[in-house]
Amino acid sequence: MDYSTMTPAQARALIREEKITGQTSGMCAGYAQANLVILPKDLAYDFLLFTQRNPKSCPVLEVSDVGSRQLHYIAKDVDIARDIPKYRIYRKGELAGEYTNVEEFWQDDFVSFLIGCSFSFESGLLDVGVPVRQIEEHCNVPMFKTNIPCTPAGIFKGNMVVSMRPMPYDQVVKAVLVTGEMPRVHGAPIHIGDPSVIGISDIHKPDFGDDVTIKEGEVPVFWPCGVTPQNVVMNVKPEIVITHSPGHMLITDIKNVELKY
Amino acid sequence: MDYSTMTPAQARALIREEKITGQTSGMCAGYAQANLVILPKDLAYDFLLFTQRNPKSCPVLEVSDVGSRQLHYIAKDVDIARDIPKYRIYRKGELAGEYTNVEEFWQDDFVSFLIGCSFSFESGLLDVGVPVRQIEEHCNVPMFKTNIPCTPAGIFKGNMVVSMRPMPYDQVVKAVLVTGEMPRVHGAPIHIGDPSVIGISDIHKPDFGDDVTIKEGEVPVFWPCGVTPQNVVMNVKPEIVITHSPGHMLITDIKNVELKY
Repeated sequence: MDYSTMTPAQARALIREEKITGQTSGMCAGYAQANLVILPKDLAYDFLLFTQRNPKSCPVLEVSDVGSRQLHYIAKDVDIARDIPKYRIYRKGELAGEYTNVEEFWQDDFVSFLIGCSFSFESGLLDVGVPVRQIEEHCNVPMFKTNIPCTPAGIFKGNMVVSMRPMPYDQVVKAVLVTGEMPRVHGAPIHIGDPSVIGISDIHKPDFGDDVTIKEGEVPVFWPCGVTPQNVVMNVKPEIVITHSPGHMLITDIKNVELKY
Repeated sequence: MDYSTMTPAQARALIREEKITGQTSGMCAGYAQANLVILPKDLAYDFLLFTQRNPKSCPVLEVSDVGSRQLHYIAKDVDIARDIPKYRIYRKGELAGEYTNVEEFWQDDFVSFLIGCSFSFESGLLDVGVPVRQIEEHCNVPMFKTNIPCTPAGIFKGNMVVSMRPMPYDQVVKAVLVTGEMPRVHGAPIHIGDPSVIGISDIHKPDFGDDVTIKEGEVPVFWPCGVTPQNVVMNVKPEIVITHSPGHMLITDIKNVELKY
């Protein structure tokens, strides 16, 4: 079965039936995928304010109503407790388990935050001929903790996590312009070049994801990363937080190109 | 004294001393001005979510910390209870008074929302030769209630309020492009042409602001308006809400052109 040409509704149906439990990269070509953070309502105001103050690392696509497992705007007929291939449950900031369905853990006070994902702008980069190394090498994008402080909000504070894509110098301007047009999926790079400037000591030792090849004559380009909000939430060690498992995203009904407007 | 060439800090100092108590239109040329809505914390989550779901009519520039009269990002050394020339206090949705200083009414649970204002894009329109009729006619922009529903959030729901600027047909595309570059101050128009399509029965009877001349061969162009959130809040009839008085805005330290990025 070719997952890349499926509609989002078809893919989500297979995910709900647990016929798809793997990563969603490449599925439903052209449609945006979203990061998930589910928090109890008593943390939701501070978290929503954190996303408002840090739109580059936390571009919110939708916030659910309190207790609701439905969405209204980015996807129809969603059950947010079942329509993601793999979830992670964290208790007091520690990973407590991975599940393909979190119905049994649902609480009436849960609020779901769906956050834009760099998968959306990567198709834009490929379209204009900018290489995306971790796709070429069939691995995860390398991600690094930085010394760039996020703007704190209530109980949430911490530094930005960035993703890195190496490219030839003559592609950098094109990459800035293409991604700069898509602020709802992280937008333009936050840094270009020397990793030490943003507190990264070894470009081949990512804090999350995989190491990728940086060829002779290439420059590392860094984007704000959707792992930032998860990282910041874990610092607070909440009783319970549910997220997607890395790479196992919500497939939305919104086309990537719509995220420009 | 020429208010147009003052720095924002100078103007705010005169406002705090109550030497300026009038409208701020035209002051500190090039700097953004902001709408104000102050609400008690128990309404702040629903209101913040409303702004997230309705970014065109409610583009948030900054949200204060709970109880704080300071701002951190759009202006330095601000006292939000004193640095606006004229405030309005509403109790249960009814105007209870206008004040040049609201210190005596301050509550520890107040949250201040500063919302982008179309003054910012009007200078962009003038720069490229698009007329702004209410500036030419020295009056307020005409504003209308529409039949365009906002996306509800918690207790807040209602229709969009729009501002209208008439212009020659051959200026419309330029106006769309210039304002479309500034999503943090309402962005592109929401409607162009026939007012009845969005539920406006008489273009010369605005619900707020003043009637302006529409010349032969001109088309009315409508933008989402910052009065929308005030209007939606009043529907709920909260115990207390404080806003700026129309046209009496917060002058920020952010240049209008910075709001493009």
